[in-house]
Amino acid sequence: MSSKEYIKQLKEKIVELVPENIKIKNIEFEGPLLVIYVENPQEFADSGDIIRKLAKDLRKRIIVRPDPKSLKPPEEAKEIIKKIVPEEAQITGFFFDEENGEVIIEAEKPGVVIGKNGVTLREIMKAVGWSPRPVRTAPIKSKTIENVRNFLLASREERKEILKRIGERIHRGTIYEDKWVRVTFLGGSREVGRSCYLLQTPESKILIDCGVNVGNIHQSPYLYVPEIQPLDSIDAVVITHAHLDHCGLLPVLFKYGYRGPVYLTPPTRDLMVLLQLDFIEVAGREGNPTPYESQHVREALKHTITLDYGVVTDISPDIRLTFYNAGHILGSAIAHFHIGEGLYNIAFTGDFKFEKTRLFDRAHTHFPRLEGLIMEATYGGSEDFQPSRKEAEEKLLEVIRSTIERGGKVLIPTFAVGRSQEVMIVLEEAIRNKRIEEIPVYLDGMIYEATAIHTAYPEYLNSNLRDLIFHQGINPFISESFVRVDSSSKRQEVIEDDSPSVILATSGMLNGGPVMEYFKALAPDERNTIVFVGYQAEGTLGRRIQKGWKEVPLPSAGGKRDVVEVNMQVETVDGFSGHSDRRQLLNYVRSLKQRPEKIITIHGDENKCIELASALYKTYRVETRAPMNLETVRFL
Amino acid sequence: MSSKEYIKQLKEKIVELVPENIKIKNIEFEGPLLVIYVENPQEFADSGDIIRKLAKDLRKRIIVRPDPKSLKPPEEAKEIIKKIVPEEAQITGFFFDEENGEVIIEAEKPGVVIGKNGVTLREIMKAVGWSPRPVRTAPIKSKTIENVRNFLLASREERKEILKRIGERIHRGTIYEDKWVRVTFLGGSREVGRSCYLLQTPESKILIDCGVNVGNIHQSPYLYVPEIQPLDSIDAVVITHAHLDHCGLLPVLFKYGYRGPVYLTPPTRDLMVLLQLDFIEVAGREGNPTPYESQHVREALKHTITLDYGVVTDISPDIRLTFYNAGHILGSAIAHFHIGEGLYNIAFTGDFKFEKTRLFDRAHTHFPRLEGLIMEATYGGSEDFQPSRKEAEEKLLEVIRSTIERGGKVLIPTFAVGRSQEVMIVLEEAIRNKRIEEIPVYLDGMIYEATAIHTAYPEYLNSNLRDLIFHQGINPFISESFVRVDSSSKRQEVIEDDSPSVILATSGMLNGGPVMEYFKALAPDERNTIVFVGYQAEGTLGRRIQKGWKEVPLPSAGGKRDVVEVNMQVETVDGFSGHSDRRQLLNYVRSLKQRPEKIITIHGDENKCIELASALYKTYRVETRAPMNLETVRFL
Repeated sequence: MSSKEYIKQLKEKIVELVPENIKIKNIEFEGPLLVIYVENPQEFADSGDIIRKLAKDLRKRIIVRPDPKSLKPPEEAKEIIKKIVPEEAQITGFFFDEENGEVIIEAEKPGVVIGKNGVTLREIMKAVGWSPRPVRTAPIKSKTIENVRNFLLASREERKEILKRIGERIHRGTIYEDKWVRVTFLGGSREVGRSCYLLQTPESKILIDCGVNVGNIHQSPYLYVPEIQPLDSIDAVVITHAHLDHCGLLPVLFKYGYRGPVYLTPPTRDLMVLLQLDFIEVAGREGNPTPYESQHVREALKHTITLDYGVVTDISPDIRLTFYNAGHILGSAIAHFHIGEGLYNIAFTGDFKFEKTRLFDRAHTHFPRLEGLIMEATYGGSEDFQPSRKEAEEKLLEVIRSTIERGGKVLIPTFAVGRSQEVMIVLEEAIRNKRIEEIPVYLDGMIYEATAIHTAYPEYLNSNLRDLIFHQGINPFISESFVRVDSSSKRQEVIEDDSPSVILATSGMLNGGPVMEYFKALAPDERNTIVFVGYQAEGTLGRRIQKGWKEVPLPSAGGKRDVVEVNMQVETVDGFSGHSDRRQLLNYVRSLKQRPEKIITIHGDENKCIELASALYKTYRVETRAPMNLETVRFL
Repeated sequence: MSSKEYIKQLKEKIVELVPENIKIKNIEFEGPLLVIYVENPQEFADSGDIIRKLAKDLRKRIIVRPDPKSLKPPEEAKEIIKKIVPEEAQITGFFFDEENGEVIIEAEKPGVVIGKNGVTLREIMKAVGWSPRPVRTAPIKSKTIENVRNFLLASREERKEILKRIGERIHRGTIYEDKWVRVTFLGGSREVGRSCYLLQTPESKILIDCGVNVGNIHQSPYLYVPEIQPLDSIDAVVITHAHLDHCGLLPVLFKYGYRGPVYLTPPTRDLMVLLQLDFIEVAGREGNPTPYESQHVREALKHTITLDYGVVTDISPDIRLTFYNAGHILGSAIAHFHIGEGLYNIAFTGDFKFEKTRLFDRAHTHFPRLEGLIMEATYGGSEDFQPSRKEAEEKLLEVIRSTIERGGKVLIPTFAVGRSQEVMIVLEEAIRNKRIEEIPVYLDGMIYEATAIHTAYPEYLNSNLRDLIFHQGINPFISESFVRVDSSSKRQEVIEDDSPSVILATSGMLNGGPVMEYFKALAPDERNTIVFVGYQAEGTLGRRIQKGWKEVPLPSAGGKRDVVEVNMQVETVDGFSGHSDRRQLLNYVRSLKQRPEKIITIHGDENKCIELASALYKTYRVETRAPMNLETVRFL
């Protein structure tokens, strides 16, 4: 059945289900959404249950829009909304979200935008056509989010075409009688880095993640193999989270011709753009060839479709995708795929943390059904037990206290996204409760900007943190202890200042970024301390220092290499990791609502993947495998 | 490096290595061969060592031809050769073999064609340009061989173009820096039937076998998966032997656009054409849709390149193929692939017998190097021990003797190729040595024609049989005990004749063919016996009868189903199989010159593949795997 015939059938059903007074003008797919255009949207708006019922009966995500003729252009709509909403709401921004048919209204007091029992919202919809979604104005302005929203707004017309094309492709109908499910491992198997997996059925090809290799950025996933050639044979790309080893090479797909959708959570979209642009900027600055240009980042962005946790979405004729919280970083998701009508269910954990952290709830376990599981094994080795979060925090504070006593500085290399914010929350609380001295905490690299993005998505943080922010009025991210470093001169000041401080700087494994300057300056002085709070991959400078190298060669200005003496204290504080440790990995499988039939371990050094697969087999008698890159494993 | 540049380099080397008096006109690839055209081929012919030295230095298969201007057209060449060769040679046929640049001269006395110290051969070459190869006229004329040769001769010009294109493609040069080797299992894994495997490197795609599913001929290998799409991305197809579960769907590849080479041994080529044409003829006769037409069989034949055992041949920029004796049926081969320059070696056993049989030597074990092995597991189950060949022969004779005593007939369903000829040799010897009565042995279906092909390739039989034929003057295949059945009326005569006899008829698993008529007529009479000497796949009528079904429904003339009562004796004589039994499979791995690092078990029911993989792992501590169809296993 073609997409057109399918729409015809749906239309007939909808006409049957909808009250007679609602006049349906047109029905269209926009990406995974089914858009119903009606002449009198107010009738629809007044009876919210109809949409829910339709969605359930048709098993589609449904959005109702007024006939395009009466849909106000964004600029005009803005003015109308401003007139409707009382001034005390303090509207700070608008974002017209085409694929969801929404206008996001950013306000200091979103409650006022809603109005009593939603009366103001309904008024807005009737007046402008767009369905309004009020959100709280983020306490720190994110340049990235602003840019992303402006870009998407400017690409509005083109995006409409893209989404229409994607929608038609999703609903093209099935062809094959064969039923099977298999996954090809294109990167990130028996290694950490360049994560890339291809989920295939006879009907569909879904690419999950497309990352860089952290240890060697010139090593890509195996994108040239015939399974994914031509690239436009891929139905959809799914990004589990924004770290570069999972999404750093997404723009390469667009460079070489992919023009399909990219599914991700809203925070992942924004963080991803931030990190990708930084990735090519840093590479360019260091004179390295970049695998893609900023235009490809924008092309990818143009094809993004955001999904919140728990939203079930058709992404191909026989596959439905749902994201669930992975607890790893902001917006990180476990991607759950429902294949066929009840045929098979398979989930890719991406990186996940099965422990409640300062920022996030622990990873989701209660999938409706789950037969196949592809899980990370970063700490899957038989010895990979991490201290508890509490112990880790105690140790970090102890290291900071003793460095302060020596009059030294604490340098903490971190990813911009993830560990930085965890450590910030810990430090803010310790300073607030006077458990450490009130010293400045400098945030260099993109940490400040990444933190701004965190503040824009409070619904992606855990309940404790949301409670602290909204009900206790304490937003730890905007504490005065945090000082942004955004220039060379400011960085020099921080280095030359004689008093103790904590410096959080990127990159997390010392393979580039501003942390290098701090390291070079602070390493020779034995009063200072470098603290590793995250995983150091094989081949990185971080790993070498961690191993105890006393002299490390570093590239200097003139293209030569300086040898830096490492006299500073080198500390590793385990337990802050966003990855599950061995115990958490095993507990995760135990805690799943349904025990999978087959578990694949990936994203770990070779022995870790093998040891975890072996432990899972022995503990739960479930079939396990630790495949190599370029292998294909059949699930059904 | 392009094919042209490569030829230029080779030419320079050749000019350097060849004596000055030899005038090289041109150098060209023809398929895998490097053809050197010279003005004065007699000089070359007089110094045979130069070619050997060149081949060794250049690591190429080399053939020397006179400048095309002086290469006689076949018809003219025939007349010239007839004049040169003394009449007593009794020439019975010519075959101009383009890809090897040879004229095969079939004669009753090939020694006379050679002449003293090869003097006549040299004279022929000088006169006609073609390099002459005398062979003994087969004692039974094969219609198939004649047809194949005539077809290839008629396609001479087109084949020349095809071979040139193939040659250029083989020598196109390598592109990728990556080095890896993997195999995708497209059929025949954890099952018997539709064998099909894809060997891949970054540079090359080689398809090994392309068979039908014996139990369900409508089930193909997974030819639609992206790894082999488009089909013309395949560099070469390699056929291990002529049974339909290994080559029955080769023509489908040509139906859907493949136009590359098909490598196989000469007997496999002829047997394959015989069996493929029979396959579609039988299907057509039974009113079933056929997956291809005879034109596709011819198209495939046009693209065949035959290789004898032990000949090392470039088949892609980074892969060399060598066939070795597999001992399973006439021409059956183990396909050994040498990848890169000493990078990796992998062999596909195909079906193989690791025991000397009446017809063949046991399978080859002494590969120059071998790191990866893909082996069959038909009898890989932990209980799958077969009686010795001697015991099997005794039991068969005993069954025949007691059936003769009862005045009954012995019906032996067999594949046309393989078991038929084994049983024939046993029966001929038993009759000759008076161990059973001199009763007629009827050969129905294609058994007679298949036997004719056996007589044309004595060099593919084992030394005992060759000795019997050439030195003792006894050719068991042409014994007078064998009576050909080639018509319905003759078949009816055999059935109605009241005296005892042995009937060998196809198909071997009672899923069609003339055996059905015999079975229907003979089953109700308890004096008769049906003897199974080969493997009966799940889902076939043979398996049901073997299991003891007393009533079997059979389609009758009017489209209805008759129920046939089975009162005849049902006997299974194990030990005649062309497959290695459990002990032979294990011994084979032990006997390999080099122990492989990784062994994959295929071509067996699920539990047999798994049990053999497990036994090999436990016995030899080598990595093993029993993959599923659609999976990919990495070797390097």
